[in-house]
Amino acid sequence: MNPNRFSRAGAKLSQATGIAELMEDLGHALTVDPEMRMLGGGNPALIPEFLALAHHRLEQFMRAPDAVAAMLGNYDPPRGHPRFVRAFAELLRRTYGWDIAPENVAVTAGSQCATFFLINLLAGEGREGQRRKILLPLCPEYLGYADQGLEPEIFVACRPTLEWPHGRQANLFKYHVDFRAVEERLKSGNFAALLVSRPTNPSGNVLADEEIRRLADLAAHYAVPLIVDQAYGVPFPAIVHTPAQPFYAPHLILLFSLSKIGLPGTRTGMVVGPPAITAAVASMTAVAGLANPTLGQQLVLPWLEDGTILDIGPRWLQPFYNARRLQARAWLQEAFQRARIPWACHADEGAFFHWLWLPELKISSREFCRRLKQRKVLTVPGEYFFYGLEDDWPHRHQCLRLNYSGPEQVVREAIAIIAEEAARCQR
Amino acid sequence: MNPNRFSRAGAKLSQATGIAELMEDLGHALTVDPEMRMLGGGNPALIPEFLALAHHRLEQFMRAPDAVAAMLGNYDPPRGHPRFVRAFAELLRRTYGWDIAPENVAVTAGSQCATFFLINLLAGEGREGQRRKILLPLCPEYLGYADQGLEPEIFVACRPTLEWPHGRQANLFKYHVDFRAVEERLKSGNFAALLVSRPTNPSGNVLADEEIRRLADLAAHYAVPLIVDQAYGVPFPAIVHTPAQPFYAPHLILLFSLSKIGLPGTRTGMVVGPPAITAAVASMTAVAGLANPTLGQQLVLPWLEDGTILDIGPRWLQPFYNARRLQARAWLQEAFQRARIPWACHADEGAFFHWLWLPELKISSREFCRRLKQRKVLTVPGEYFFYGLEDDWPHRHQCLRLNYSGPEQVVREAIAIIAEEAARCQR
Repeated sequence: MNPNRFSRAGAKLSQATGIAELMEDLGHALTVDPEMRMLGGGNPALIPEFLALAHHRLEQFMRAPDAVAAMLGNYDPPRGHPRFVRAFAELLRRTYGWDIAPENVAVTAGSQCATFFLINLLAGEGREGQRRKILLPLCPEYLGYADQGLEPEIFVACRPTLEWPHGRQANLFKYHVDFRAVEERLKSGNFAALLVSRPTNPSGNVLADEEIRRLADLAAHYAVPLIVDQAYGVPFPAIVHTPAQPFYAPHLILLFSLSKIGLPGTRTGMVVGPPAITAAVASMTAVAGLANPTLGQQLVLPWLEDGTILDIGPRWLQPFYNARRLQARAWLQEAFQRARIPWACHADEGAFFHWLWLPELKISSREFCRRLKQRKVLTVPGEYFFYGLEDDWPHRHQCLRLNYSGPEQVVREAIAIIAEEAARCQR
Repeated sequence: MNPNRFSRAGAKLSQATGIAELMEDLGHALTVDPEMRMLGGGNPALIPEFLALAHHRLEQFMRAPDAVAAMLGNYDPPRGHPRFVRAFAELLRRTYGWDIAPENVAVTAGSQCATFFLINLLAGEGREGQRRKILLPLCPEYLGYADQGLEPEIFVACRPTLEWPHGRQANLFKYHVDFRAVEERLKSGNFAALLVSRPTNPSGNVLADEEIRRLADLAAHYAVPLIVDQAYGVPFPAIVHTPAQPFYAPHLILLFSLSKIGLPGTRTGMVVGPPAITAAVASMTAVAGLANPTLGQQLVLPWLEDGTILDIGPRWLQPFYNARRLQARAWLQEAFQRARIPWACHADEGAFFHWLWLPELKISSREFCRRLKQRKVLTVPGEYFFYGLEDDWPHRHQCLRLNYSGPEQVVREAIAIIAEEAARCQR
């Protein structure tokens, strides 16, 4: 079984990639290597209040053996369980007044799967031979998209502008979309879609309502869909620490997930968009997987029907992650002051990562993270998040992503080790 | 959102296909249209003894809140939960003496997903520009493969020979692999893999041990892997009514599923094969979906560890489906005798379908099934299972697949309607 005999597309999807390495490390740290200080991956925290709610719901569900039998023993339609799909459309309609019907919704086996389908549905070689790409208005962007194209070089990314909102001495920077650069790209190229995560994974940047509207206007003007990946964002799980409203328009494709609310093991995502898109996604689900896993949909169904799903974030998740991010930031401050080296963090507006910038690192972030791993600290090197750029940018070798949702002691120890190791690796 | 702007691969995967239509119909019949007599799709029966076992296991699992929290709230490694993977490898090793270690195993979100990955990993345009196809030694073959290629025309199928093991008047026929045709194809072409389902979906044919060994020898001789999809077969769920042993060799890729044992809603499949293949499948899982759904693995884990999984089929499933198949065959006999038209069924050696052949049908099977659907009988037209053939074969318009696992009254009524309608559609 010689890997040289793999197809082009197969070789591309199966080569060792950022996301494959990350998920391998993450899964192993969670299952077989508890010694590892796990600041890599995107595993959400196991928040006691949410787990109690989920456990209670599961117990309630178990009292209806017919429902359990159907959940285990039947295939759902590829678009998702009809009652779930209807309840989700109705939730969005009654809460935000959006013109959403069940035909605007398709469930997928997680939102990673949704972007795999959408990227390859829209980008790549078209029927008439022309090639279309995905435009990323803000870079760094989620590493999980980077390897999803069946064809090579499917992304074009725009370098952001960089600001120090509280002055340089505050060690806090922020990326901004360079709208002029985005528009120039749109003018010059034939794009399949714009794609942003909101909050941005990895930086924790949250595109302001005004920025999302401006991107939507640009997308409309150039007649391309705008895909907004809301895995960490509004309306749920709403892990955001800055004002942000959900936004929808008929040329938007919104991606929802149950993972960061606390149910990643169920692999459940939802796509909201034009009927032609959701129908295509449902067909792709049938072809590539027959149907979706049922557990997640059955668990949260009553939470869609009574609106609980919108309360979980503000009530339990946001306060939890907010306390963690402030604490982790204080530890960073403390550790880097002690280490006496230049450092900065991105404005932590959402998700549960600190995006650390070490401008004087003399080795690549990849090499730095390898050294940290030897010291039992797992992080994600920044290089993985800078793809689709035209030229190299030194900044891409100077950042790393830290998931601060794990046990406090672990995060604190890890941060101390990161600062100590960084001090050894200064130019 | 103009579908004309879909990519070639996207358009191919998302166009209305046999499997998409089938899963849509199946899901709707199970969730919102209980009036429909459901003989389409591949939904397993809800067998009370199995459901009781699964319910009991779920209750037991629920008594360990930490395990529930991990199952819901953590991502597994892309290859599958390490304890599950190990237990599965050990089960095969100790039961059959196969040389299988965890690195020979990869979990996927169902075996439909496994074939999607494998077909596109191996077939299509290779790195040096040559195109490789998948050879189907026996046609008709599972419709779910038909649309899985990212590139068009990825399959080459061999027409079988046809035998009447009990004479023509018994109305029972059987396909046989035409080994000479298979070898001629292998000689002439550059193939990526051989692929068979065992039992064959749709015909219920079970390749004999001798036939599988002969295919394996041919595959070895021509240095291509042989993929054996055992979704309905041995070692589990073992829905076979004829002697059949599992077979493994280092150039085989075996596909297992938890669906037909009774857990399709969990979307759990397992690939066993060379480490280069399972590593590639694990990477594809990470890229396309991050991780697998966890519920199925956690449910059956103790059944792997204590071997229960091998008992479920012989103890509960095979007797159940065996009674159903004989009953359904008797009803077919009765109904077609009354209708006085020529008909035959394929030797029903495994799975839970009758493969009905109506040699004097004056309309296509597709049209015939459309008429049945209007009469609230859902079946799957034969045309979908005959793909990859060089020339048209009248036989392909004369067959349909009947899933006889549903409630007895429903199956009986449906069969009566099928015979009645068939009588109206004779040449």
